[in-house]
Amino acid sequence: MLGVVMHAPGEVRVEEREDPQIIEPTDAIIRLSATCICGSDLWPYRGVEPVEHTPMGHEYVGIVEQVGEQVKTVAVGDFVVGSFVISDNTCEICQAGFQSKCVHAEFVAATSGTQAQKARIPHADGTLVATPGQPDPDLIPSLLAASDVLGTGWFAAVAAEAGPGKTVAVVGDGAVGLMAILAAKQLGAERIIAMSRHADRQALARFYGATDIVEERGDAGVAKIKELTGGLGAHSVVEAVGTQESFMQAIGATRGGGHLGYVGVNHDVKIPGIELFFAGIHTLGGPAPVRRFLPELIQMIWDRKIDPGRVFDLELPLERVAEGYRAMDERRAVKVLLRP
Amino acid sequence: MLGVVMHAPGEVRVEEREDPQIIEPTDAIIRLSATCICGSDLWPYRGVEPVEHTPMGHEYVGIVEQVGEQVKTVAVGDFVVGSFVISDNTCEICQAGFQSKCVHAEFVAATSGTQAQKARIPHADGTLVATPGQPDPDLIPSLLAASDVLGTGWFAAVAAEAGPGKTVAVVGDGAVGLMAILAAKQLGAERIIAMSRHADRQALARFYGATDIVEERGDAGVAKIKELTGGLGAHSVVEAVGTQESFMQAIGATRGGGHLGYVGVNHDVKIPGIELFFAGIHTLGGPAPVRRFLPELIQMIWDRKIDPGRVFDLELPLERVAEGYRAMDERRAVKVLLRP
Repeated sequence: MLGVVMHAPGEVRVEEREDPQIIEPTDAIIRLSATCICGSDLWPYRGVEPVEHTPMGHEYVGIVEQVGEQVKTVAVGDFVVGSFVISDNTCEICQAGFQSKCVHAEFVAATSGTQAQKARIPHADGTLVATPGQPDPDLIPSLLAASDVLGTGWFAAVAAEAGPGKTVAVVGDGAVGLMAILAAKQLGAERIIAMSRHADRQALARFYGATDIVEERGDAGVAKIKELTGGLGAHSVVEAVGTQESFMQAIGATRGGGHLGYVGVNHDVKIPGIELFFAGIHTLGGPAPVRRFLPELIQMIWDRKIDPGRVFDLELPLERVAEGYRAMDERRAVKVLLRP
Repeated sequence: MLGVVMHAPGEVRVEEREDPQIIEPTDAIIRLSATCICGSDLWPYRGVEPVEHTPMGHEYVGIVEQVGEQVKTVAVGDFVVGSFVISDNTCEICQAGFQSKCVHAEFVAATSGTQAQKARIPHADGTLVATPGQPDPDLIPSLLAASDVLGTGWFAAVAAEAGPGKTVAVVGDGAVGLMAILAAKQLGAERIIAMSRHADRQALARFYGATDIVEERGDAGVAKIKELTGGLGAHSVVEAVGTQESFMQAIGATRGGGHLGYVGVNHDVKIPGIELFFAGIHTLGGPAPVRRFLPELIQMIWDRKIDPGRVFDLELPLERVAEGYRAMDERRAVKVLLRP
């Protein structure tokens, strides 16, 4: 089959990779209908994370082609959406809703790069969710978004306790930040402040529910959020970037007793303990337990109540993956969908 | 009046200080029945925090001697317990239960060192709570504990979501850690693991409700907590020290999706963002909103349901304060009560 390999920073190619096989009786093999490039794929692309001949991709939707003998909840021919983290969905941690910390958790990126024609998904019952039927083609981008960016943005908004009567500030205007805005609106937030300085992303932020835009960053951004919230700060803040500046901006923007949800995969961030201490805030973050939200998110997409697929602003055949990475790296695209 | 002044690290003296006066119509002047030395007073004592001729103390119980004309809820002659942070208890932040982040928050240590015969308490209505009557003398240590260590330990246990069915690990065997154990037990925790390597504190930990003792620290301590919890980590972890090692130990001991409550005033702690990220845990901490819990804690003490006063293992007249600091610095005393 064809699959994407990153040979070194900046060097992404499609090449012939071995077809995945059932290894464990709980595995499924899926044929991908769509996959995409994640903001976190840019870390190795930019040389911030090590990379060496690595199969890429962890977001996926597709049709089940083969299942191991113990797989019960998905069958050959089903259209499925899966989380970017493998989970058994039965252990104590999964039952508490933290499937990304499952005792069997593995990153899909490590088990089977999904920027490919096929993928092996371990613990298929605990990782995949079948859609109610074969989806209309126009729903596929939205279903694909549920696999990571929507699920992650949704988790961030839930972690930040976005809800009725709340002012929510979102740090980061990438795909995850935009999905957190969508989530905050669905969760009933009263006011949603997008922190963004790019006109196209501001427009998308408003489409998804942002009521206010703040262009300032760092301390100036914090001051602006305070100004908009009677000096108190936002009830709920989402951090969806992962840099030192964005993380400190998010802490500073949260009111005392407020909630910070952080999902930006961070690098070299060092949180000064004393600043976090005196902030007096709740925090929750990390790799999102997407599996917890998948049934609900799939249904909302199926019922056309939400349109997360709009976050994909460039679509390419898998063969042209290198163009996709370049477009995201240069911020010409928010998120790139790939057709295998 | 007599009051304690720290002139330089290690130099604590009782001397004549000016009597406090009503300044604002919301002030109260109280005559202290008891006060004490806090673990956090050791930071300047040890030269970790700057100190220069500073009046000391922020824990207090006593009798109201004078009130400003706008004070309504406490009257002259009332026996009162107050939080170590001033709060109006009416602003939006207070109403949400985060009085330590009140828009009028000030540390009592900064407004009026309470290791003294008298103290001025601003926002008396929002900071002080009167007891149901004049307390029996043996209740005074427990009421004094409510002013900070009990309130802080209680907040830590609430922040860690200690409760029925939960395993709680407490990092730190100082007064606050011990009070967190008391709180976890009252909140119904199933299992309470005290991390302590001092026999006398282990005994007190067991008295307050610890079911298990772990002597190991750092990575070995984390491994032991994992071993005791089927490899998962504790549901609820309290951090009550404030060092890099104790904070990382607390993060490591918390299961994915679990809750960490941190109340150790920390210095030079730098939390690696990536470790916090992949831990996937809830955190909440900072200066405790003691005022939120005071009515409930006072009632439990009044009804003799809890005995937090046992945490004071040395009692001295105010004049001998220097002995008290030495005893705590050398860990010969858990907590020192001072009689003005």
